[in-house]
Amino acid sequence: MGNNYCVIMAGGVGSRFWPFSTDECPKQFLDFLGTGRSLLQMTVDRLEGIVEKKNILIVTNKRYKGKVLEQLPGIDERQILTEPIRRNTAPCIAYATYKIFKEDKTANIIVLPSDHLITNTDEFRRIVTEGLRFVSLNDALLTLGIKPTRPETGYGYIQFGEGGGAVKKVKTFTEKPNLEMAKVFLASGEFCWNSGMFIWNVQTIVKALQMELTEISDVFANGMTIYGTNEEQEWIDKMFPTVQSISIDYGVMEKAQNVYVMLADFGWSDLGTWSSLYDLTPHDAEGNATAKGKGVFYGGGNNMAVVGEGETVVADGLEGYLVAHNNGIILICKKDDEKRLKEIVNEQTK
Amino acid sequence: MGNNYCVIMAGGVGSRFWPFSTDECPKQFLDFLGTGRSLLQMTVDRLEGIVEKKNILIVTNKRYKGKVLEQLPGIDERQILTEPIRRNTAPCIAYATYKIFKEDKTANIIVLPSDHLITNTDEFRRIVTEGLRFVSLNDALLTLGIKPTRPETGYGYIQFGEGGGAVKKVKTFTEKPNLEMAKVFLASGEFCWNSGMFIWNVQTIVKALQMELTEISDVFANGMTIYGTNEEQEWIDKMFPTVQSISIDYGVMEKAQNVYVMLADFGWSDLGTWSSLYDLTPHDAEGNATAKGKGVFYGGGNNMAVVGEGETVVADGLEGYLVAHNNGIILICKKDDEKRLKEIVNEQTK
Repeated sequence: MGNNYCVIMAGGVGSRFWPFSTDECPKQFLDFLGTGRSLLQMTVDRLEGIVEKKNILIVTNKRYKGKVLEQLPGIDERQILTEPIRRNTAPCIAYATYKIFKEDKTANIIVLPSDHLITNTDEFRRIVTEGLRFVSLNDALLTLGIKPTRPETGYGYIQFGEGGGAVKKVKTFTEKPNLEMAKVFLASGEFCWNSGMFIWNVQTIVKALQMELTEISDVFANGMTIYGTNEEQEWIDKMFPTVQSISIDYGVMEKAQNVYVMLADFGWSDLGTWSSLYDLTPHDAEGNATAKGKGVFYGGGNNMAVVGEGETVVADGLEGYLVAHNNGIILICKKDDEKRLKEIVNEQTK
Repeated sequence: MGNNYCVIMAGGVGSRFWPFSTDECPKQFLDFLGTGRSLLQMTVDRLEGIVEKKNILIVTNKRYKGKVLEQLPGIDERQILTEPIRRNTAPCIAYATYKIFKEDKTANIIVLPSDHLITNTDEFRRIVTEGLRFVSLNDALLTLGIKPTRPETGYGYIQFGEGGGAVKKVKTFTEKPNLEMAKVFLASGEFCWNSGMFIWNVQTIVKALQMELTEISDVFANGMTIYGTNEEQEWIDKMFPTVQSISIDYGVMEKAQNVYVMLADFGWSDLGTWSSLYDLTPHDAEGNATAKGKGVFYGGGNNMAVVGEGETVVADGLEGYLVAHNNGIILICKKDDEKRLKEIVNEQTK
């Protein structure tokens, strides 16, 4: 069995959690639940006992390099791979893959988003350990699929087929379904949520990249003489913008033949919306929740407070509202109306 | 004509404007409209050209002495009269009256609350100057009455009788009326709002105190040998709690025979409620107002933002709400429901 590596994708931008997330400080750098650790920090913490710290690579945008270094004092600058521009997940993964391949031809690799929440760390470690063992023995591209608990329309689904244990052969990847379809998926028992977390041996992913995304693969394979030298960043800055922008799901996973899914149930959320944060936060009898700070809601329910540490929201007569305070902005809006919220945030941040 | 003096009553407590006003920092010390000057500071500013700074006395509770000194750097410590406990307005005025009487037997005195708002300073000065002239020539207890613009139920009213000019003889003082009664008052043209501002010569008020509130008057008259000495505070601390707690309106104005009212119209509000602050704040077409900070209200009207300088409220779908942020508290409540607000504030500040 080779050494374990982890590639953490931390290049995400966006202001869906404005006024908390901004272009200057995207979601992965935020301490969402007031625990004192950002989502990125928790992602690294979760790897303890599975991946040695020196084998963790963080891929991020150039502008966030300082933030990553600041939040992860145990991570060396050389472990941070910086993209000059965004090119979706496949180039990011290809770059990291060949970097690791140069160093260790037998590496087993976990690829993780940096901005998801996982509440059951022990179960995460158990699943990942089992997955790493599987890919060290099998020429398989393994993805982690989350057991669905509701007909969620915000996630992609994976349909799986035969396989006796936790690992199943993948039949199809699906786009985000409508509610009708999601209900059918849920009822069938053949679908799980696509978490965007992958486990594979470096040989397997190199082969898959060469097969399915040859052009991208060739570029980053060419870099192997340069990785680890003083020219690396300059070379990446030049080459990265030339490659196709494409996701690893669409470019590799949906096309390769050796794709498997491992069913997992470790309290996962991609934290894609305020509602998903609400779902994860304990509620009182009226459905009011406090993710950060303190919320006191009179005469109304299903509200959520996400304010500063030591701050208190005192609200009367609100129903289904989000009250968020950060960076001089107090946002008060219906927490489930994503479309409306997007309009407002776009207007306020333009 | 004697010298002009002013007594500013700055002992008020209360948390009606919580989370801005608190027991530690009552309303008079707040910069309500984001002008950079507190209500107390504006009260002093307004006297320029009418009363010399050295002739201004501030009566306040002991605990606020430091705050007064801090906010009024031009005021000497000896000009601050500190009450050990609250005893309503009559003892406060009696104490200040005999202090002034010791110093100047012909003084003309204006008595002002420290927590009212007046928007037309020129007109205030014109009225007060005229009032001072009137009381220097007449043995009259003069009160300033505000020309009513609406059937307000939050104020006391004064019914006035004959008198050709701006000064009218007072017929009766009334308690806060119900709406029916307030409408009748307004329609009659014989009533004005009781502003709680008084003008009189020191001889006149000393005589009235001796006549109507003999016990209180005797106590503070006895202090005349002590005022200005090192024993003053100790003596006040001992004597103040022994006197009756009573308002000057009830104790003197409603009983004396020589009570007059001068009609004034200088943009006055006692700022008794959030609604009264809203009324004074410019509104946009939807009735949304920002008293402090910035308010952006989507899909709803008649809201008011009172937040920190440089802060912005971004709210969707609120109607008739107050959003206030201060001291770690974000208050979101119907701005016109005083009763509800009081319950909430009581519960939150107990």
